[in-house]
Amino acid sequence: MAAGDAIETLSRHHCFGGTVGYYRHRAAATDCDMRFAVFVPPAAAHGPVPVVTWLAGLTCTEETFMIKAGAQRVAAELGLMLVAPDTSPRGPGVADAEDGAWDLGQGAGFYLDATEAPWARHYRMYSYLVDELPGVIARHFPADPSRQGLFGHSMGGHGALVLGLRNPSTWRSLSAFAPIAAPSRCPWGEKAFSAYLGPDRSRWADWDASELARKLPDAGRRAKILIDQGLDDQFLAAQLHPEAFEAACAESGLALELRRHAGYDHGYFFIASFVADHLRHHAALLGTG
Amino acid sequence: MAAGDAIETLSRHHCFGGTVGYYRHRAAATDCDMRFAVFVPPAAAHGPVPVVTWLAGLTCTEETFMIKAGAQRVAAELGLMLVAPDTSPRGPGVADAEDGAWDLGQGAGFYLDATEAPWARHYRMYSYLVDELPGVIARHFPADPSRQGLFGHSMGGHGALVLGLRNPSTWRSLSAFAPIAAPSRCPWGEKAFSAYLGPDRSRWADWDASELARKLPDAGRRAKILIDQGLDDQFLAAQLHPEAFEAACAESGLALELRRHAGYDHGYFFIASFVADHLRHHAALLGTG
Repeated sequence: MAAGDAIETLSRHHCFGGTVGYYRHRAAATDCDMRFAVFVPPAAAHGPVPVVTWLAGLTCTEETFMIKAGAQRVAAELGLMLVAPDTSPRGPGVADAEDGAWDLGQGAGFYLDATEAPWARHYRMYSYLVDELPGVIARHFPADPSRQGLFGHSMGGHGALVLGLRNPSTWRSLSAFAPIAAPSRCPWGEKAFSAYLGPDRSRWADWDASELARKLPDAGRRAKILIDQGLDDQFLAAQLHPEAFEAACAESGLALELRRHAGYDHGYFFIASFVADHLRHHAALLGTG
Repeated sequence: MAAGDAIETLSRHHCFGGTVGYYRHRAAATDCDMRFAVFVPPAAAHGPVPVVTWLAGLTCTEETFMIKAGAQRVAAELGLMLVAPDTSPRGPGVADAEDGAWDLGQGAGFYLDATEAPWARHYRMYSYLVDELPGVIARHFPADPSRQGLFGHSMGGHGALVLGLRNPSTWRSLSAFAPIAAPSRCPWGEKAFSAYLGPDRSRWADWDASELARKLPDAGRRAKILIDQGLDDQFLAAQLHPEAFEAACAESGLALELRRHAGYDHGYFFIASFVADHLRHHAALLGTG
């Protein structure tokens, strides 16, 4: 697509009295076409509504959350708009993992701004989500940009915590499912950060939720964060480290509700089971109705 | 897999306090391995629960409903087991459409017993669902076989109506989303029935819900059927013909609630929007708790 403010509607579907739509636009930040999905609740017919944005995990796309999480029912009830961007820049001209790995490159953008070749040109998901997409949503949808929340899963839980902790004036409510909570010290994070940010670990701290939370100067004034973690999650021990984020919050005084759920794994059946609680958490902080 | 009563668990996932599992077994009726999915609600910990079986549409598998319909929340609340079989026999030894068509062969079994070559050996989904799968479920899961309901979508709506109308002692409650309600007179049905049943249309009537409903001898004693139909369904005019089924029910005195929904299309966002109503319809007829 040509640059500019236009968005292209790929498809739209009635859902719980509102609509799920898939869209494409030319993004300046990532210098490529980007796709995103939006659920517009029925309440938007009467005026702008709060927006809760979902950041998905490794291998997912803008479609995953809308299809698998079952969030539209409660979002319709609460009058929340849902926005789901893709998980990385994509396309034939965009760098990708040379070995076809699913945890680096396309589908694995880690919601940061890369500084290293060959990633630095397009892998700028942080700038895209902080500086560009919220404006696109505000201009094209009945959204209230003063009331925005952010949540996500796994790599997207990492993204939600990092973006939210660094931009409290944009996102007033945060939550996560099974986030990669201390990426500097897990294999997924070490691989991605080494590639995208380079080997100097001092530059990783700005992209690590546990490091950010530990040193957050205004931690005591932030809204409580909700995190759900399944205890049968196959990635819990090696990759996720919620206990590191929990300790960081305790150290700085950041309010956290970390719920551990016996039996639940890392997948969308886990997310679907608790997504209503997350939407109510956001609605309570953003105000609805 | 070898024949016998064994089932193989492919995966299991906690979901809304119960479990979604994917299973495989050797089916005698279709003479091949068959997969199915089961949601066991938390109420099953206290004793056998009613079972509602979902028949999916063209191109779908046993996974589609569990992933996309968002039915587990209400099924957990109502104490209903959900069973989702595959949409056809499958495998390298199973006949398939020679031109790769998606509306014939694997993924398009139409829930009938084929009489024609090369289909007759494996394409026996009717016998599989009527005579075999309910017993497998009853033996391996905490199901109450005296309380079973059946529903489905599109080709699976056709299947639910045909199987349910012909076997009222097995399925006490029926519903459908956008069913192929008069397959003898639509392109999908004419193609499938010609291939599976042969050109003699007099042999098609037993597999056509509108023909069955029109002549149902005990129509006045059957439970009311619930059907939802989106009015922006891209297949409504050419393929579905709910008005034919409606007329047939009026003729025989079969109770039908046919709800037409402005704006909704043929997809799972439509199903998700109304699946709770369907589960409550089944629970009311089957009794729960």
